[in-house]
Formats: sequence, structure tokens, C-alpha cells
Amino acid sequence: MSVVVQKYGGSSVADAESIKRVARRIVETRRAGHAVCVVVSAMGDTTDGLLDLAKQVTPLPPGRELDMLLTAGERISMALVAMAIANLGHEARSFTGSQAGVITDAVHGRARIIDVTPGRIQTALDAGHIAIVAGFQGVSLDTKDITTLGRGGSDTTAVALAAALDADVCEIYTDVDGVFTADPRIVPAARKITQLSNEEMLEMAACGAKILHLRCVEYARRFDMPIHVRSSFSAHEGTWVTDKPQGDSVEAPIIAGVAHDRTEAKITIVGVPDRAGMAAEIFKAVALAEINIDMIVQNISVSETGLTDISFTLPKTDGQTGVQALGRIQGKVGFATILYDDHIGKLSLIGAGMRSHPGVSARLFQALADAGINIEMISTSEIRVSVVTRDDQLDDAVRAVHTAFGLDSSDGEAVVYGGSGR
Amino acid sequence: MSVVVQKYGGSSVADAESIKRVARRIVETRRAGHAVCVVVSAMGDTTDGLLDLAKQVTPLPPGRELDMLLTAGERISMALVAMAIANLGHEARSFTGSQAGVITDAVHGRARIIDVTPGRIQTALDAGHIAIVAGFQGVSLDTKDITTLGRGGSDTTAVALAAALDADVCEIYTDVDGVFTADPRIVPAARKITQLSNEEMLEMAACGAKILHLRCVEYARRFDMPIHVRSSFSAHEGTWVTDKPQGDSVEAPIIAGVAHDRTEAKITIVGVPDRAGMAAEIFKAVALAEINIDMIVQNISVSETGLTDISFTLPKTDGQTGVQALGRIQGKVGFATILYDDHIGKLSLIGAGMRSHPGVSARLFQALADAGINIEMISTSEIRVSVVTRDDQLDDAVRAVHTAFGLDSSDGEAVVYGGSGR
Repeated sequence: MSVVVQKYGGSSVADAESIKRVARRIVETRRAGHAVCVVVSAMGDTTDGLLDLAKQVTPLPPGRELDMLLTAGERISMALVAMAIANLGHEARSFTGSQAGVITDAVHGRARIIDVTPGRIQTALDAGHIAIVAGFQGVSLDTKDITTLGRGGSDTTAVALAAALDADVCEIYTDVDGVFTADPRIVPAARKITQLSNEEMLEMAACGAKILHLRCVEYARRFDMPIHVRSSFSAHEGTWVTDKPQGDSVEAPIIAGVAHDRTEAKITIVGVPDRAGMAAEIFKAVALAEINIDMIVQNISVSETGLTDISFTLPKTDGQTGVQALGRIQGKVGFATILYDDHIGKLSLIGAGMRSHPGVSARLFQALADAGINIEMISTSEIRVSVVTRDDQLDDAVRAVHTAFGLDSSDGEAVVYGGSGR
Repeated sequence: MSVVVQKYGGSSVADAESIKRVARRIVETRRAGHAVCVVVSAMGDTTDGLLDLAKQVTPLPPGRELDMLLTAGERISMALVAMAIANLGHEARSFTGSQAGVITDAVHGRARIIDVTPGRIQTALDAGHIAIVAGFQGVSLDTKDITTLGRGGSDTTAVALAAALDADVCEIYTDVDGVFTADPRIVPAARKITQLSNEEMLEMAACGAKILHLRCVEYARRFDMPIHVRSSFSAHEGTWVTDKPQGDSVEAPIIAGVAHDRTEAKITIVGVPDRAGMAAEIFKAVALAEINIDMIVQNISVSETGLTDISFTLPKTDGQTGVQALGRIQGKVGFATILYDDHIGKLSLIGAGMRSHPGVSARLFQALADAGINIEMISTSEIRVSVVTRDDQLDDAVRAVHTAFGLDSSDGEAVVYGGSGR
């Protein structure tokens, strides 16, 4: 019997009515002849409520105890989903991450999955039962303590279980119809994407598309597990994330979509002596502060002063830490000053097709220029071009680029174009 | 190092402030040089909230899933208590029932503890940590499923862990100062009892004193574990439940206290043929319906009809089931009718001293007669006399008896009295 893993997020199980609706969908899948394993997140804002309780008790909750606390959220939702399924006349069994065999390292709050040993889940499926598994959580191999996987953890749980159960597909249910060519709240003409390659989805996720978390896509790529992102509120086909052609899909368009991100800030270090090792010194300090930096730009030193400027972007939430870490090495490196700018936005154009179609960057820059938008930083990968703009120009930038690459829904297929280099 | 087990009920951990207060008390005990293992219930009305959620999803939640759901309550409170302790600079580790080694049978909703294997708790205590354990829950030996222990479960967890850890004492913290000679809401002159024997406490619990559950006292007696019932809101000594003399306690008084119970109803089966086997037939039907009956009275058949009446008391919550079960055997037994009366109250006078002091019953009946209260049923054990009255006379009955046996606080020591038989 084919195994289907389904994951329902917090908004899909936010209250009793939602849980009953989810239960009906699960039962439909079971009745269609599949073995069904379901991964659930905590109900609605349960996790926020628990975090708030923790904050009332202590400003610095120990990681082990915070994980113990937060995992109560999925425990509640999974039991309720199992009950709702039972009410429809099907057998369901809920399992904690630990019971489901989700084995992790011992890093509380952002544990990584080391192994999945889904013996109890397999037994339940073999018995014809529907298995309901708590997302976002596991058990540490070393300490036997309960861990949580951090952001995107439930999606990762679902993909990891799908891989371990050799499922046909991992369905990620959310409150939108799939992955779009741009955020429909910004670009009303945005279209649902039928299929994305893993690397495109990875770039989308890394560039601010919130629908799937990076870790989950990485996991899916490693285990070659197709993901189907779809809405729990409709029966529509969603977006397939897989490198295998799905259904009657035609040749993939050159550009998959436009992602945007408002969560980053920019730090510019002004007047850095243009000597070997200075950049290394600076980014070593940032790395020691455990900050993930994104884009880096170093101006070529053209002045006679022998000084240069270095800019990089980092999560806004790490802004203060970053500035402090750099402040501590100011004397050693000898730069002039640090500028912190949290009014930036990042636009990324993503498409595996751009590998074989030069001119994408040029067209992108032209579209932004035509819209009167200044580009502050640029970075590229094989299948992505990202630019940093002022944050209040980001929405305009996304719309302009979406239109320029023929992604608007009224335009039909994305345009194919020529050009030189990028 | 001496081990102290402390149990805090839902009202003691109802909110963040209460949890911080409980944490301070736990840390005080640790600083006094004891190894401390703490058992907690769910916060305030968390359990009711979870039950309500379940009801919104299905009228008949499967027991396995209901247990999974409800155990989220202690998970939240234990993690918060551990955090609050960490905030005071002490190391605390929370453990689920399963992690704490509370092994039960597989009867969901009212599982019984089969074994306690507190290896992880002992390790934590040996490391100088404070262990926080979820009350009310365990893990089934056979199915490895999460179970709950039912009413009084957290107290039972505490006593079971105390026994397994060879603790000096199991402290049960509650919102009153201890066990009283009567409910202070009914008898303002009621006094806190300094010490009760296990069998007295068993009778008190069985007769409606809500402060400790029967199972927990049974467990404590079996393992000879002293219980200290005390308030989490004050530092006062509470009530010791133990057969060992505590401190400078003088000879125990004859009467320990007056318990009352409004949770029972009375069924009278009228016109039962006075033949052998009829009572057996009736109580077999009641037992098959899984109803625990309490008092039974059969009138001696004096009439020439050869018919008798049988009355018994049972929990009001089982009333409908009981009447239906009897209705099904009416034809077979051939009785006339069933009367159901849920306006009764039960008063129980308890004291190990009454074994050696005859006349207690006589004095009790006289006190009730003087107060104009009619007695409907009587039952006795070695150390208890119980009577059933109208429910609206129960409070007056309790006050009259409390005074008659010299238990009012202004009276000093309980009176010693003579008399003939009881």
C-alpha cells in the first residue's frame, strides 16, 4: 500500500472546527486506499502562549525546559486530531516525536534530526491505523531529553518521516494554494507555480519565501522525496517540489518566481585598511557571534587613502549582536566607523532556466531602473539574482520585476528572451 | 542525603506568580540540605480546558488519545516550575511520568501503577539537581502508551515516587493548612489535626474528606511512607499521616474528625421477594454495571407479604446507570418498584480510638436526635460510624456531632467519655 505523509500547520488545526475539517481530509486519503501518516503543528497561537508563560516565569528559560514546555503544544493538537478521526469511524493513534522515532542531537531549541526509526508508526500503518505524529520535536540520542527542531521543524519532521517510511509523497498543507510566482499580497497577478525543482525551492526559501523552510527542502532533496505544497481549505492541486517531472508538465519556464525579504539589515564598515586579512578578521568576529551573514560587498579601493568599505547583510534580529561584535575589534582592525541600516529590502529572481539563458541580470536591472529603483547591493548564484533596495521601494520593485519577466497571470507563459551575459 | 518528595496541586501552580512562589519553597528545601523530587499537577483549570477541547471534537474521545491530550497539562506546569527554579540559580530537570519510570497497566483514564523505576530521577538527584515530575501520568508496560492515573493521580504519583526513592517524607501541598476535624466552611470551630493514622486517613478519604485520595493513602500505608499534608501558602506544620508517632505528639484523641459527603444517592428497591439469592441477583446486576456501592440496608421482612425492601447508596454520577441496570432485572427478581433519592447526605465519625471506647455510636445518635435530625441509614466499621440524613440537614448534623464529641477548637482536648456498647 502506498504511504502518504501529510503535514498540517498551526492555522490548519487552529480550533475544533478546523481539526474536524482536517480529520475529514485525512480520512478521505485513507479511504482512497493510502496508508496515511500525519504530522501536526501546535494549534494556532498555542506556541506563542506557552512562550509567554515561560517569559512570565523567567527571562532566561533553560533550553531543555523550554523544549519540554513547547512540545505540549503538538501533544494537544495531535491527540485532538486523532480523536476527530476516531469520531469519523477510523482508527487513529497519536505519537510524540520520541515515540515516532525522531532521533536528534541535543541542541535544544534547534536540534537536528540524526535518524528516524519509525517502528511504531510502521506497525500502526500496517495495522490499518492512521498515525498522527507531533511535528517539531524529537528525542536526543545522548541525553534522552525532549528536543525541538526550531523553525520549520514540523515540515522537516514530515519530510524525514516520509523518507523513513518510503512514502510516495509528503504533502505540506497550509492556508494558501501553493507556492506563487510572488507574494500575492504584493502582486495580485501572481500565479501559482505548478512545479519547482528542489534547488529553485531552496533558493526561494533562502530568499524569504515563507511557505517552506530551507531545512525541510534540503532534507527532501537529500532523500529525493517529492513535496506537494497545497491548501487545507481547498481540493486544488498545489505546487510540487521535485526534480521528477509531474503529470503533464511541459518544459519548465526560465524564471520560477520573485521572492522578497524584509527581515535583513545592512552593516557597513567604513574606512577599513585595504590590507590582506582585514576582511577575514571582520568576518571571523561576526562568525564567532554566531551570526549568519547573507550578502557581502567590498568596494574596490580606488582612493589614495588605502581605505575601503565593506557592507554585509544579516538578520535584523542579530543586528545588535553584530554591531557589538564589530565594535570590539575596531581598535585591532582600525576601521573608522560602523553604519547600521535596517531599512533595506531584498528582491530575488529565481529560476533554474537562467543557467542557459543569459541576460536575466541585465533585464532585471533595466526593469528596476525603469521603475526608478536604486540598487544598493547585488549577489548572484547559478539560478538566482538578488538585489538590495530601500525597504519602502521593495513592493514596487517586486511588481516591476514580476511584470518584466512575464510572470503576471494575464501574460500567459513566461517570456523567453535573449541578451548578452549577466 | 535525605530525600524529600513534594507534591503541588493545580491551585498551587495556577499562574506564573504561584509557580514562582512554589519554586522558592522548593529551593528552600534544597538549601536546607535535602535532595528534592517534586511532583506537579496541571495548572489550575488546564485539565478542564483540555477536556472541553476534546468535547468540541468528539462526544466519545478514545481513552488513549484523551490520556495523550490531558498529559499535556502537567508537561506545561512541570517545565514552568523547572524554569522558575533555574531562575533562582538552582538546577532543575523536568520529567514526564514515562521518563520518571512510572509504569502502569494499560487502563486509560484510570491506570494503576505497577512499578516505579526512577533511574533518571535518582541520577538527577545524585547530581544535585532538583527533579520535577509530571503527576497523574505514566506509561503502559504492555503497549508503551501514555496513561493517566485518574482522580487523585498526582498524589499517588508522589507517594509512589517517595517509596521508590526511599524518601523520608512525601509532602502534599494544598491550599489549606492540613486535614481538619471537619470542613471549616461548615464548622468554623474545626481544628487542624496534627497526626492521623493511615487507617483513619483512609476512612476520612473514603467518607468524603477531599484532601487526600484513597489510592494515595493506600499506597502510603502499603509502603509505610509518612505523608505530610500542608499549605503551599504558609510555612505552618500541617497534618502528618503516619502510624509512627511524630514529634512530641501525645496520645491520639479518640475521635479524629467528622467527614461528610454529598456525592451519593440512595436507591431503594421496594417489594423484593424475601427469598435466598434475591440480594445476590440485585447486587450482581449493579456490579456488572461497574458501580461501586457504599452502604447497604435490608429491612427485616416482618410483613406477612413475604416482601422486603433493600436500600443502598452509590455515587450520584452512577445513578442513572444503576436504575437502568436494576430495571432490566425487575422481571426476573420480581420486585415492585425502584425509588431513586439524590437528596441524601452522609456524615461519618472517624477515630481509631473508638475501638477501645464503646458508646461512640450511642453518643452520635443522641447528638443527632437532640438536633432534631432523622437518621435514614447506618453503617459502621471498626473505626468509623456513618449515618445518612436528608441533604439539607447535613450541615447541622456535622456541627452538632463536632460539638458533641468535643472537637470544637475552644474545647481544648477532645473529651474522653464512657458508655455502653455502640
